Amino acid sequence: MRLLHTADWHIGRRLHGFDLTAAQEHAFDQIEHIATTQNVDGIIIAGDLYDRSLPGEEAVALLNQMIQKLNLTDHLPIYAISGNHDSAIRLATGAPWFQATNYYMCTDIAQAFEPVELPDTQLFLLPYFEPFAAQKYFKDDSLVHLDQAVAACVTKMKTLFDPAKKHILVAHFFVAGSAMTDSETQLKVGGLAAVPAATLADFDYVALGHLHGKDALHEKNAQYSGSPVKFSLSEASQKKGVYIIDTDTLKREFIPITPLLDVQRLQGSFEQFMDPAFYNTVARDNYLGLTLTDTKAIPNVKARLDAIYSHIISIDRVNGYETDVATQHLDLAKRDPLDLLADFYESVAKDDLSDQQKQWAAAALKTANGEVQS
Amino acid sequence: MRLLHTADWHIGRRLHGFDLTAAQEHAFDQIEHIATTQNVDGIIIAGDLYDRSLPGEEAVALLNQMIQKLNLTDHLPIYAISGNHDSAIRLATGAPWFQATNYYMCTDIAQAFEPVELPDTQLFLLPYFEPFAAQKYFKDDSLVHLDQAVAACVTKMKTLFDPAKKHILVAHFFVAGSAMTDSETQLKVGGLAAVPAATLADFDYVALGHLHGKDALHEKNAQYSGSPVKFSLSEASQKKGVYIIDTDTLKREFIPITPLLDVQRLQGSFEQFMDPAFYNTVARDNYLGLTLTDTKAIPNVKARLDAIYSHIISIDRVNGYETDVATQHLDLAKRDPLDLLADFYESVAKDDLSDQQKQWAAAALKTANGEVQS
Repeated sequence: MRLLHTADWHIGRRLHGFDLTAAQEHAFDQIEHIATTQNVDGIIIAGDLYDRSLPGEEAVALLNQMIQKLNLTDHLPIYAISGNHDSAIRLATGAPWFQATNYYMCTDIAQAFEPVELPDTQLFLLPYFEPFAAQKYFKDDSLVHLDQAVAACVTKMKTLFDPAKKHILVAHFFVAGSAMTDSETQLKVGGLAAVPAATLADFDYVALGHLHGKDALHEKNAQYSGSPVKFSLSEASQKKGVYIIDTDTLKREFIPITPLLDVQRLQGSFEQFMDPAFYNTVARDNYLGLTLTDTKAIPNVKARLDAIYSHIISIDRVNGYETDVATQHLDLAKRDPLDLLADFYESVAKDDLSDQQKQWAAAALKTANGEVQS
Repeated sequence: MRLLHTADWHIGRRLHGFDLTAAQEHAFDQIEHIATTQNVDGIIIAGDLYDRSLPGEEAVALLNQMIQKLNLTDHLPIYAISGNHDSAIRLATGAPWFQATNYYMCTDIAQAFEPVELPDTQLFLLPYFEPFAAQKYFKDDSLVHLDQAVAACVTKMKTLFDPAKKHILVAHFFVAGSAMTDSETQLKVGGLAAVPAATLADFDYVALGHLHGKDALHEKNAQYSGSPVKFSLSEASQKKGVYIIDTDTLKREFIPITPLLDVQRLQGSFEQFMDPAFYNTVARDNYLGLTLTDTKAIPNVKARLDAIYSHIISIDRVNGYETDVATQHLDLAKRDPLDLLADFYESVAKDDLSDQQKQWAAAALKTANGEVQS
């Protein structure tokens, strides 16, 4: 059998204030196209379908529409779990009805021990859970950390293994040794919240969600699919897509997804960024992180760059800000405030303060110092 | 066929801060019992399943469990619409899967024109909607008010009427002439937001939701089921329950539901309310609106009554507050504040201020007047 493995759709997410609905629809259309043209036998969604436990109505309508299309229109089985961004309770709405069309939405740890029996494979769907849920389920207070809780789950799953079949685990957690970017929620710090890869050794394949980069982990039998869309500048260099796992050969194949607008870092001087000879050569609509090589203050830098580039998500300086050598070693507190202002104005506006401006500044300073009652 | 008609469950609602979960479960158990023992062929839920468009997780879990019990365990068909308290979009989650087990959840005006075809009856499920939804659906900007919009819907429904069958409408709106209590959301004021009963004349039965009292409307072919639980003091005297409509005879029967704790008004003097000879004769756990006949100030009245009655939802005075005749005609602003305080203390505490208390009061007054720097 061939199963498509995806995760971390984060429907409802925004990127630095930009609506990602169109980007997510664009990625979804490709996932659907891959699934139907590659004749996969089912789709694994390894958690974080929504970006928030309380998704907005638009997000609910969008995900409902996507799932209906895959399962009811395309008749593709879906094997899904809730992730740490999802509300397990909300996502469970309707689940008992879904199985009639081979849509499995597992949101409770207990469901992890009722594997979906495919002809040649057992699919164990383990939703994201907190250790206390495992303590309660196993009636074992010693399961304090996630690694212990997952080990207990795996031990129980192994008692259910059908030796005639392959065994696939779908899960949503941090596997020890994985590399994180800054767009995944770092719920826990430290190794106790990470699951050692050795715990997962007896599965033929572990279809992981949680980390957004497909290359976060390098294990023979475990793979993060990564998110289908880039959700932060730290994901700029990642290739997005889905995996198709063949349950017969256990070979997995990465199929890329093309972004509607890419997330990209650009580095250069302000002058260069404002130069048509430069900006006409780049995809100005992309979500851009601009890194300026300038060191001087640049007035209105964001507004001026926004006029050229429509989706700037960050502006930073690679070389820091230059400080005037002449003033660097002076005790600024001892200088006359009007002199300081004049210096600053000159460095920013490339012009001297006019007499009128000096008068306004002097009056404002007096007021600020309480010398004038206004 | 026999259809059970209920509405306005408002799962997630609280009553003056008190959690109604147990009350709602208690009412649900009776609805389920009525449905199964009376061998009904289906259950109509005429809107406002939730109390809020964004219900809490507990409310979601509770309603999911109730619906699953009726439809999946008891195999009862469900014919439901969204009400003004529901989010139509959220409530629609899973709906396309539900019909496989005869659970109809209609949340969009377009679905009102795909009647559920029962052997002897056509069921038209019209969710709560705003007139602009009808304008959009009918491409008719003249449908400005609800009465016009519903008239357009009914006209279209009639073109779908199978003359060999009975015709039932399930709807959630205010029918002109109905009596409102203060626990229904009054979204609109005035007759334009009310639907004239004449508009509904061609249906054999109109199963209504929206108003919480079953006796809000007196029409031969239209009935509010009322809510299964009392949601405000204004509903204290209402009888709660469900209707069973027989599609053959078109007779409808009211079947009462017993509240877990009743909502009740009690009137009497404070002394009487605090008297064991009285309070041992009443259901002290009920949700009580206490009306005091006293006119004097009573110190700590809420706390003292709370110690006897566990679910007080309001305390009011039927005779107002008595004002001391001696002070009534004096210009209070001209009196000495310490004298006023002494009078007040005496009237409340039935005792004179002690010398120490007078000193404290005098010191506090001086501080308040800025005479003492503290």
